Amino acid sequence: MIDLPFFSRQAQAICDAGRFLYQQGWSPATSSNYSARLDSEHFAVTVSGRHKGQLTPADVMAVDLQGQPVQSEARPSAETRLHAVLYEWRDDIGAVLHTHSIAGTVVSRLQAGDALILEDYELQKAFAGVATHEGQLCLPIFDNTQDIEQLAKETLNYLMAHPETPAYLIRGHGIYTWGRDMAETLRHIEALEFLLACELATLRAMS
Amino acid sequence: MIDLPFFSRQAQAICDAGRFLYQQGWSPATSSNYSARLDSEHFAVTVSGRHKGQLTPADVMAVDLQGQPVQSEARPSAETRLHAVLYEWRDDIGAVLHTHSIAGTVVSRLQAGDALILEDYELQKAFAGVATHEGQLCLPIFDNTQDIEQLAKETLNYLMAHPETPAYLIRGHGIYTWGRDMAETLRHIEALEFLLACELATLRAMS
Amino acid sequence: MIDLPFFSRQAQAICDAGRFLYQQGWSPATSSNYSARLDSEHFAVTVSGRHKGQLTPADVMAVDLQGQPVQSEARPSAETRLHAVLYEWRDDIGAVLHTHSIAGTVVSRLQAGDALILEDYELQKAFAGVATHEGQLCLPIFDNTQDIEQLAKETLNYLMAHPETPAYLIRGHGIYTWGRDMAETLRHIEALEFLLACELATLRAMS
Amino acid sequence: MIDLPFFSRQAQAICDAGRFLYQQGWSPATSSNYSARLDSEHFAVTVSGRHKGQLTPADVMAVDLQGQPVQSEARPSAETRLHAVLYEWRDDIGAVLHTHSIAGTVVSRLQAGDALILEDYELQKAFAGVATHEGQLCLPIFDNTQDIEQLAKETLNYLMAHPETPAYLIRGHGIYTWGRDMAETLRHIEALEFLLACELATLRAMS
Repeated sequence: MIDLPFFSRQAQAICDAGRFLYQQGWSPATSSNYSARLDSEHFAVTVSGRHKGQLTPADVMAVDLQGQPVQSEARPSAETRLHAVLYEWRDDIGAVLHTHSIAGTVVSRLQAGDALILEDYELQKAFAGVATHEGQLCLPIFDNTQDIEQLAKETLNYLMAHPETPAYLIRGHGIYTWGRDMAETLRHIEALEFLLACELATLRAMS
Repeated sequence: MIDLPFFSRQAQAICDAGRFLYQQGWSPATSSNYSARLDSEHFAVTVSGRHKGQLTPADVMAVDLQGQPVQSEARPSAETRLHAVLYEWRDDIGAVLHTHSIAGTVVSRLQAGDALILEDYELQKAFAGVATHEGQLCLPIFDNTQDIEQLAKETLNYLMAHPETPAYLIRGHGIYTWGRDMAETLRHIEALEFLLACELATLRAMS
Repeated sequence: MIDLPFFSRQAQAICDAGRFLYQQGWSPATSSNYSARLDSEHFAVTVSGRHKGQLTPADVMAVDLQGQPVQSEARPSAETRLHAVLYEWRDDIGAVLHTHSIAGTVVSRLQAGDALILEDYELQKAFAGVATHEGQLCLPIFDNTQDIEQLAKETLNYLMAHPETPAYLIRGHGIYTWGRDMAETLRHIEALEFLLACELATLRAMS
Repeated sequence: MIDLPFFSRQAQAICDAGRFLYQQGWSPATSSNYSARLDSEHFAVTVSGRHKGQLTPADVMAVDLQGQPVQSEARPSAETRLHAVLYEWRDDIGAVLHTHSIAGTVVSRLQAGDALILEDYELQKAFAGVATHEGQLCLPIFDNTQDIEQLAKETLNYLMAHPETPAYLIRGHGIYTWGRDMAETLRHIEALEFLLACELATLRAMS
């Protein structure tokens, strides 16, 4: 059974994250979806199509790792299975954030290859376990698709082969990142949006 | 007769939209105009020349589909007829928003042709009835003119021939979009401003 | 004698303008100066070196048209004489705003000539007396100097020869604009900052 | 002994600075560190890894000029020694701010040389002791390293040889600046971020 006080706390963490991410301009026009783990079999996720700057706990529901609603008639975000495979992949993941920013959208469209490599940025250290700017951060880019089940498999296969990956991009669509808890995941998304904005500014200045 | 409590509700929705759109920087210097349908023959629209971030219900008036003031001596926005033909065109339109953003202004000036084609953006799905990023979104661009009656005819003719159009641009001027109600129209304008900002960033990076 | 209640009202209008302009990022690091007419011989102006986002009426003083302090030991802004010649030039000017924005700074540096010509922007209509986007708006650019008295003469000579001018730029420095009262002057500065941001975005996209 | 009421005041000044700098987007993802002098041998500095927009006095600690914690078990920012050598270098320095902005990061990466020269910007006058836009402002750029002790020596050697330096950059990392007190240091950081944003916009427009 889902622990209700813990569900309430996670739902509130999702609402607070939404207000922040929307104000940054990273979740416009009811786009994006967010989740937080409830237990080994369930996580809380945003209901489909809600305004991310105006979330209340009633806009958050529980699902199992197959993405099926639990104790609710609501429809979870269309991309719930992308969250589910992350919770399945690593049991130390406590939260997942997916945003739609201008930088994430444009950089992933302009980058022809299947990955964005970041190096020599001090802010790479914002990712859990990264202690220096000297390594490379590799963000895979998946082509966008409406076949979410297929994309879920593709991302899971990639991550199992590359367990150090801190985040991934979907081309013309957005960023997915994760962390131990919501605070760490928010730190990761802030760092990613900063780094993608740097990459976009660099593309402009060097074109 | 106009239903007064409904007028008040629509006027408040217009004021709230104004505060949001002004804060985003999309309605500077008393530019822009907004409207919401009152009934099959009337709509509420902003009075000419008001500060869009400081609207109160007294800055909103009622007009008929010819754009003539109803129960008011105030002067409606100079572009009221552009709103009127949209309410005439489709009776499921409940609100119309017109904004002046930097991205809308610059992209429409740089785009030499008579349309902006958007494709492969996930956010295309923010438009009512669009379920995939795989189609194209076509935004016609009309040349700017101070002959509003002529422009009203031109836009109506275009829309009758292209009923799937979600919005249009006026070159060097701004965006017009619409929806079932104010919430949907705000979602459309947010998506459009996002997509135009992406197009502007892309133009910069690829020039 | 200066009318004290009117001084208080004008000082408050200057403080409110400062809070807005600072929040827009157009008056950073104690830069910028603002003024409002008190009577045919005096105007209120910001004291030198104050934080423009934190102005209180005690940061505003009165000066005469020679820029000399009146009823105060405070030091007025170093550029007070640039304001003074505007009040001298036209007695229908009620307020003057000078801002330092990134767009104003960069565009005026990149523009080699002695004027910036704006055309085909709908927002040109934000200026008092402009009813169409079809004319040209000509903003002269003066080279920056620390010899304010010399610059004051130069600007006055230019304006007497070109009375339609709505504003001017100082290269690498900022914008000066004016209006009948503070509300109109704020509308002018908002329109100018919008148009300069459009010009900067266009320069980037077309380089 | 550290004066506790003064420690509290300096800690609060650091928290307030953090809220401002975070809101500007210059201290994302727990990056950045700030300090304020306590006496000739000690200064207050942010505890390592805290959210800079949510600082409370409990996120600030005291250290000596060797960077060792005083009256606290907390771990000071990893870059504390870069602050310490500044307080050692000049006893009129009362505060030090280090930020991570997009402009600072991108400009310092694109600038191949070991300095950024700023000239003909009016805002150069925001720096203490600069009375004209006509001189040059030279900001040295140090390559990024995780060997903070080595970097501390390098910066101190440079500053002793170039005492007029108002700030320095670390490549791909951020800005360090200082001032008599927190208010002056905030004015310096605002001016620097403005100037770096201008440089970035210029690079884009001229590439």
